[in-house]
Parts: sequence; C-alpha cells; structure tokens
Amino acid sequence: MNYLSDKAKSVIPYTPGEQPQNKKYIKLNTNENPYPPSPQVLKQIKEYDVKELRLYPDPENTALRVALAEREGVRPEQIFCSNGSDEVLAFCFQAFFNPEGLPVLFPDVTYSFYTVYADIFGIPYQTVPLDGQLRINHFDYCRANGGAIIANPNAPTGIYLSLEKLLTVIKYNLEKSLVILDEAYIEFGGQSGAPLIGDYPNLLIVRTLSKSHSLAGLRVGYAIGDEGLIAGLKNIKNSFNSYLLDRLACAGAVAAIRDESYHRETMLKITRTREYTVDRLSDLGFMIPDSKANFIFVSHPEVKAGELFAYLKEQGILVRYFDKPRIDNYLRISIGTDQEMDILVKQLERYLQKR
Amino acid sequence: MNYLSDKAKSVIPYTPGEQPQNKKYIKLNTNENPYPPSPQVLKQIKEYDVKELRLYPDPENTALRVALAEREGVRPEQIFCSNGSDEVLAFCFQAFFNPEGLPVLFPDVTYSFYTVYADIFGIPYQTVPLDGQLRINHFDYCRANGGAIIANPNAPTGIYLSLEKLLTVIKYNLEKSLVILDEAYIEFGGQSGAPLIGDYPNLLIVRTLSKSHSLAGLRVGYAIGDEGLIAGLKNIKNSFNSYLLDRLACAGAVAAIRDESYHRETMLKITRTREYTVDRLSDLGFMIPDSKANFIFVSHPEVKAGELFAYLKEQGILVRYFDKPRIDNYLRISIGTDQEMDILVKQLERYLQKR
Repeated sequence: MNYLSDKAKSVIPYTPGEQPQNKKYIKLNTNENPYPPSPQVLKQIKEYDVKELRLYPDPENTALRVALAEREGVRPEQIFCSNGSDEVLAFCFQAFFNPEGLPVLFPDVTYSFYTVYADIFGIPYQTVPLDGQLRINHFDYCRANGGAIIANPNAPTGIYLSLEKLLTVIKYNLEKSLVILDEAYIEFGGQSGAPLIGDYPNLLIVRTLSKSHSLAGLRVGYAIGDEGLIAGLKNIKNSFNSYLLDRLACAGAVAAIRDESYHRETMLKITRTREYTVDRLSDLGFMIPDSKANFIFVSHPEVKAGELFAYLKEQGILVRYFDKPRIDNYLRISIGTDQEMDILVKQLERYLQKR
Repeated sequence: MNYLSDKAKSVIPYTPGEQPQNKKYIKLNTNENPYPPSPQVLKQIKEYDVKELRLYPDPENTALRVALAEREGVRPEQIFCSNGSDEVLAFCFQAFFNPEGLPVLFPDVTYSFYTVYADIFGIPYQTVPLDGQLRINHFDYCRANGGAIIANPNAPTGIYLSLEKLLTVIKYNLEKSLVILDEAYIEFGGQSGAPLIGDYPNLLIVRTLSKSHSLAGLRVGYAIGDEGLIAGLKNIKNSFNSYLLDRLACAGAVAAIRDESYHRETMLKITRTREYTVDRLSDLGFMIPDSKANFIFVSHPEVKAGELFAYLKEQGILVRYFDKPRIDNYLRISIGTDQEMDILVKQLERYLQKR
C-alpha cells in the first residue's frame, strides 16, 4: 500500500540537467547565461524593503506585466507571468488542449518536457520528425491538429525557423487551433513572433528571463498573446496557485527588464563567443547545425558523443548528453565565457589527438 | 473561436482575498502576519550574492529541506518543498487521489481551494457538514473514502481538532487511504501532527511559512510525510516544473526557520492579541468560536456581517467576508498588531452604537 494515485505511479518525469551543489564544474549543461544579471538587479535586491515580505505579492504581477508589455510593445493585458516558462507551458497544456481533441503536434526532437506535460494532463499528441538535417519542416504543421508547439530556436538543435515560415503555420491554423512558439532562446539571434500577436489570436509566445537576462535562479517566465488566451491561462493559474511569483522575483525581474543596454551587451558577447566556438570546433572536425541559441549541438564523425561527455566530465566540464534516438551522437554545449570555451576547445582537441 | 480548452472554459477559479496595490488599508483580510520577518531574513537577503541568480536553483532544495527537517524532527527525505502550500495541495490532488476512485472527504466549510483542485484535476469529492457549532466531527472521516483533507485549525472557523481525535481518523484510514492535515495555521496554538509521521505512512502534513514566519511574499510551503508519499509528490512536481523555489526564497526561508526564538516571540504576541481581541469583541456581543489560528471568525446576533464588512472597508479596514451558505453572517478577521485591533474594535463599537 503506497497511497499514490495511478498518475503518480505511472508518470515519467522530466529530467533536468545536472545541478551539482558541491563540486565546481565549468557548467555548460543547462544553458545558463555565463554573465551575472544586470547591476540593477543587484541594486534592487539590496535595497528591497524586506519587511514587505510579510505581505502576499500582487497576484496579478501588475508592475512586472507593465514592464514586460513596454518591452514587447504589447498591452499588459496581453502578458501572463509565471514561475519560469516551464510553468507557463504546463498551464498551456491545461488551458488550450483537450484530452478528447485531435493530437497536439510538436517535433520528435525538441524540448523533452512537452511529452511529459502531454502525459500528465492526458493530452493526445503526435511527434513530427525533423528532416535529415534536424530541421523543422513547417508544412508538417499545416494539417488538422489539436494545437502545435514549436520551439524557436528549437532545442536541443539551436536551429532557427524564419518568421515567414512560422507565419504560414499560424495562418493555416487561424480559426482552427493554437500555435505556441516557445521562444526560450529567441534573444540569441532569432526574430521574435511577438509583433504578430495583435493580428493572430491563435498565437501564443512563451518566454523566460532565465537565459536572456541571467535570472535562472529567480524563476520568471511569461506568455504573450491575445487577451482571450491570457484569460484562459489565468483561469488555470487561479485554480492552482494564486501567487506564483514572489516579491523579490518580481522586483528583480523588473530591474533586469529595464536595463536593456546591459541585456543587449550580454547577448552580443554570447553570440560572438558562439561564433568563435563554432569556428574552432569546426576546425576540429565537429559538425554543428547553425545555432541561434546560447548553445550549440555538436557531433563528431569519428568519436562517440557519450565518450566525449564522460571525458569532459572527468576534466571538470559539464555538457548535456541525451541518450535518445536520433540525437545520441550529439552533445549540447551551452555558450559560456570566452575563457570557458577556450578550456572546452582545448580539452576536446586533446582528446581527439590522444586517439 | 477562443482556442480555450473545455477545462479553461468551465473551471471556476479560487478567489483570493483582496490585495489592494494602491490604497493603504489596515489589512486584516488575508491572514498575513503583522510583524516583519526575522532580522536574519533581512541580513540573508542583503548579503546574498546576486551574481548567483544566473544559475538555476538546486531542484531538490536540499539546504531548505535540511533546515526544515531539523526543525520538524524528521529526515530531509520526509520533506517536500513548494512554491507556497497551495502548490503542495495542488500536487497532492494529482499525486494521491484518483479520478476513478472513491470521493475524497473534506468539510463543507473549510479552505475553499479544495473544491477547485478537485474540479480542475477531476477528482471526485464529498463535503462533510460541520456540526451546528461549526466543528468537525472526526467520526465522519472514519468511513470508506478516496482520501481525506482536514485543515487544522480549520479555516475560516479557526477551530482546532485535538491530535487524539485526528489519530482516530488516521488509524481508521491506515492501509486504506491518505489523510492530509493542512496545518497552515497550526503554529498559533495547535499541536502539530508531525511527530506521528514516522508511525503513520498514510499521514501527510502540509505547512506554509507565509503566516507563521511572516513570509507570504516569499512563497514557501512544504509537506512532511513518509518517504513514499514524498516520492509521489516529487514525481508530479518533476512532471510540472523542475525548479519551484527561487534562490532568494530558499535563502530567506532557511534564515527564517533558523531564528526560532524570533518566531516564538511573534507567535506569542499574536496569540495574546487574539485573546485580547476576542475578549473585547465578546463584550460587544460578538460570537466567536474558540480560535487557535491567527484569525477569528465572528458574527453578531443583531448586525449583518455583510454590512459590517462594507462599513469597515469604508473606514479603511479590510476583513474577509464569504458570501456562502452557512457562513454568510460571519467575518473572518486576521489578527494584526494590538494597535490595529484597537482601531478595529473601536470602529465596530462605533457602528453598533450608531444603530
């Protein structure tokens, strides 16, 4: 007798990347931003009136929604805030998809949390194979469906799909079903679909400050969409937890959003380091799809990814390895500082020479 | 065409107490602690290394679980941490109750979020009427069920059920179904069931730091139970959101938990103010069930609660009024500072004299 529900017994949870609490690694495994958050976040937290923590936060996150709306060029009513973008996605499965509906479509190789959400909320889904170059064929999403989720850039490939192609998908599904763009990595070189929001009530965009604003430790995600969609998310959220974001998270997030110049500078540094890393790893024979994210997805024709993963870990470098069909010979490597990437490249070089 | 799921269209969300963001009220409507969090929380937040926010938090909340386990006299493996105790409860409905199972039992008058959870997760339930004095009859929970939830002290009545009576319920249901004690208000005068955890694998205790530790604004709740139950909660949590608690919330919570003397002092002040307030309101003719919470549930034989609520609001005092069967002639009044309660009593006195 273990008192668990059938669901708790059968569900296979998502496994996040390792978060070692003791040993110091060069941590390139969970796409964290290598730079600290804006100095404005520091200031905000240091100056925060801690006495206020005795009071519940604003359940509507008004200040944060106003700041985000300004940034995204939408109205605050078109923003929904949540405890990380994973939580937004979890709410989406409940707010927009039906257990008795048509299957929701997403790529066979993408953020692996989508299948977990589908399973736990009993939503039918169908995975759509990427092409031979691990690219999304957007026409695959122009057919009857119960909704579609496209990570753009896709994870863990880093490959970006143009807004033009996405627009084809959004238009095809208009008046039929919802298209969710998971833009967790959009700020590293892609173009956001946010400007389309006003014209397409079937478009919902999901974002996070974790990577773009160096705030993974503060848990702030959001959705941008038509007011009707936001109302649906709010219905689910208010049936689950009235207060998702704590006061310090809201205050820190607002400070980060307002410091756009720091943000741009960081994005620039990371994309430069990415290009530099791609060049050097290509010289070593690695094959790397064009990435518009803060990570690259690499494979080597002569060395197994699993071996490289183990070797790097031994050397104190954590990267991500997915032991899954189609991608079990790839490593996903987050873009760190120049110095960190230098060490990575040198270690890989050393390993390849030793063979 | 609104793209919402059937669930998002039909669910009736929980309505939290008003959280006015502009006007200054004497806020006695959401059971917040009138005293600031421990000075140790302030220190911890001011000294926190904000650079670390770029990194994800520990998904296992190890430091926090260790601190809580020490406090509760259990092992860290018997603790589950969450973004407020509402989130723990939401996970409980998924982790322990079955859509095809027997109905889950809870009182007809209790925390009104329970029915919302049951609805959104499709769990059958049956409400059990409180007796004429708004008390829980514990024998009502000694019959076939799919689980039982008892808030102790109960909300919004504040009435406490003895551990002896609860033990009858837990023993009856042993090897049959789970008993959840929602102890959000236990520290204001009740005796926790936590010491029973080791002996009863069908007992789960849900707690929050919101009220007891003046941290409503930081969103930290937890469950205490047998490792098997905690594993079930973790399965659900890891299928929903890997990182529930942000780094600052964890750090602040640990600091608060470790300052037990400050906590005790605050509890003492609040319980004293409660007794004093009860005395004075009784003198005015109010009827008040014995409360072991940081709120009291009051009614007056000659004045309608709804009118009192409106009058107090006009005077800048917010209390909670539930326009619901059986309790629509009661006000739930949180215990504030002595000074705040003086103003409340005077206003009520004035209103009664004016009639």
